[in-house]
Amino acid sequence: MNFTDAEQLASQLDASDTLASLRGQFDIPDGIVYFDGNSLGPLTYRSREVLTRTIEFEWRERLIRSWNEDWLAMPARIGNVLAPIIGASPNTVTVCDNTSINVHKALMSAVALRPDRTEIVIDINNFPTDIYIAQSVADQNNLTLIAVPADRIIESISERTAVVTATHVDYRSAQLLDAEGITLAAHSHGALVVWDLAHTAGAVPFDVTALDVDFAVGCGYKYLNGGPGAPAFIYVAPRLLDTASQPLQGWWGHEFPFEFETSFRPAVGIDRYLTGTANVLSMKSLEAALEIFSGVSMVELRAKSQSLTTFFIDLFDAFLAEKGFSLGTPRDPESRGSHVALGFAGGKALVETMAEQGVIADFRPPDLMRFGCAPLYNSHMDIVHLVKMLAAR
Amino acid sequence: MNFTDAEQLASQLDASDTLASLRGQFDIPDGIVYFDGNSLGPLTYRSREVLTRTIEFEWRERLIRSWNEDWLAMPARIGNVLAPIIGASPNTVTVCDNTSINVHKALMSAVALRPDRTEIVIDINNFPTDIYIAQSVADQNNLTLIAVPADRIIESISERTAVVTATHVDYRSAQLLDAEGITLAAHSHGALVVWDLAHTAGAVPFDVTALDVDFAVGCGYKYLNGGPGAPAFIYVAPRLLDTASQPLQGWWGHEFPFEFETSFRPAVGIDRYLTGTANVLSMKSLEAALEIFSGVSMVELRAKSQSLTTFFIDLFDAFLAEKGFSLGTPRDPESRGSHVALGFAGGKALVETMAEQGVIADFRPPDLMRFGCAPLYNSHMDIVHLVKMLAAR
Repeated sequence: MNFTDAEQLASQLDASDTLASLRGQFDIPDGIVYFDGNSLGPLTYRSREVLTRTIEFEWRERLIRSWNEDWLAMPARIGNVLAPIIGASPNTVTVCDNTSINVHKALMSAVALRPDRTEIVIDINNFPTDIYIAQSVADQNNLTLIAVPADRIIESISERTAVVTATHVDYRSAQLLDAEGITLAAHSHGALVVWDLAHTAGAVPFDVTALDVDFAVGCGYKYLNGGPGAPAFIYVAPRLLDTASQPLQGWWGHEFPFEFETSFRPAVGIDRYLTGTANVLSMKSLEAALEIFSGVSMVELRAKSQSLTTFFIDLFDAFLAEKGFSLGTPRDPESRGSHVALGFAGGKALVETMAEQGVIADFRPPDLMRFGCAPLYNSHMDIVHLVKMLAAR
Repeated sequence: MNFTDAEQLASQLDASDTLASLRGQFDIPDGIVYFDGNSLGPLTYRSREVLTRTIEFEWRERLIRSWNEDWLAMPARIGNVLAPIIGASPNTVTVCDNTSINVHKALMSAVALRPDRTEIVIDINNFPTDIYIAQSVADQNNLTLIAVPADRIIESISERTAVVTATHVDYRSAQLLDAEGITLAAHSHGALVVWDLAHTAGAVPFDVTALDVDFAVGCGYKYLNGGPGAPAFIYVAPRLLDTASQPLQGWWGHEFPFEFETSFRPAVGIDRYLTGTANVLSMKSLEAALEIFSGVSMVELRAKSQSLTTFFIDLFDAFLAEKGFSLGTPRDPESRGSHVALGFAGGKALVETMAEQGVIADFRPPDLMRFGCAPLYNSHMDIVHLVKMLAAR
């Protein structure tokens, strides 16, 4: 294969891409090829439109009245828009705070539901904030944190385990964890699970209902395109919603926040996972960006994502494997998420050089370049462009 | 006094108002008289300008690069802009999350610093979220929550007290609590204090350094005008910064977040109070709005605020006292914050009717109308307009 062949192939694949028209919803600057949607999704036209209305009409003109007219309903409303993306039923997802804080809520809830257990099991390669938060939850509850590689999670679960937590898509390798196996193993020992869907939601199918997951959390600013620092989400299984509690019990989680009662009574349902005032601008931007998903099936999204990453790996084999790059992502498309990682000595400098030339990716120490292949806006031709630049470094 | 007298007086007071020109920084719609800055500050021209740049340049164009170019530095940078407003020294304030979450962090920190104590003392009339959070912190640590009226706080502090917490300005009455007396009493018994400055910051002077306060928190969207759901702030006394810890230890509070270490090491200084990714849009909007304070002395601000509330109470006496309204705010200007509360049966409906006529206030059950007198943009003539409408109801 030479690059002419690659371009021809990319053209064919892009021509038969049923999601190709969605690229038009994103305002990506001319001259930019963007491979960092796994870190920060780009601006959508719809987010800009909604933000303008939020600033000019809801804030400037309606002022405090917008709380009753719109904003108070945001967390539940946006949660319900997000729910189908992770297979959740209505009124089981809410949108608030950031992922770290929601991991804390979920783990504290889980531990409180399993008061006689003594251990938390976590993937040792989990995103660090999950590990830091889990360590704190373990310390606060006199539990032991058992941190093991993903392939040893199942054997580490026992009748001592209160909760098992892991991120579905490894943030470095894009390795997909065995969500079904781990969840089943946890439940078979009477433990609960908390899945972090930061690199899943919006790019990789996940069905919290079919998997009978207890808690899930995730991030609004990656493949969901909510904008920088968009709020996170939290899912709680409906069978737990009546009994679960979480310690960040602020007024937004009260049954009647505007009665200003002096005693806390948890709201019915998922609202009890709210704490304080929502950051409206970021919430509205996320809500707008989520509209793109309304006509998209997760099956189509997954097929496009796999087509992009498979094409990338084919070009890696043809053009990069013998030039000092190593593949850091599983070859089996069923075992990987939506980014491709390449090991490369000097990857940090290369990512910076490429950005100056309009191709944006990111870097994770010590030597991993990450390329998010976002099925909503990346094309196969984007990948040819990227691999050409990598091959020419 | 009749309304012609009142208008003449208002004109004179407004003519000699050295802060009057600051009203021009706010884009308040024509026909609106706004008395709810104690709940949601209005849009500033500068916030709009910065939000536009954040959306169009930093997000759309620079994309992920903006984290290094600007956003990672936001919490510390904005904390330092906010610090002088509460008398804090540099690098002791950071901006993040919401007030409820920061109350949790501060109380958990305080309790951990006083492991042998058994009680938390709180103002029973504190804003409910503070009470809910304090109750949860007490429950988690097997402490007793002692909730008493403000005038019984000092006598309730003992060698059993781990921490005392209260809001400086009562959210209903605008009563100023005795911050100096309560802080001294706490310290004399070896207890710590957490002051909530939600209705203080930006309208009422408070000097965390002179008062030797341990922790303070507050809100970005009231008198600081950061926009709906703007992030909150947290102050920690420099003498505590090396030893204090908080349980929401996410990656943003790590010494080296981008080293992705598997063990948590708290950042040096106030950064350890961060948890996860900041909501950029709301942070930038707050940062822009804070610019207004750079040329304003807290002494001037307080004088204007007291002039507004005193004038309001004078007009209350002249026009409202005999029409079913009762004054819910202290008459002594040294004992009140920056809003005036009026009791009125049917206040909820009246607030709604007035909003339709362009005068915006808010309501707290069971019968309290609240009127925020924001020294940055309210005028004495605004108050005449308001009182006329109230008198004519």
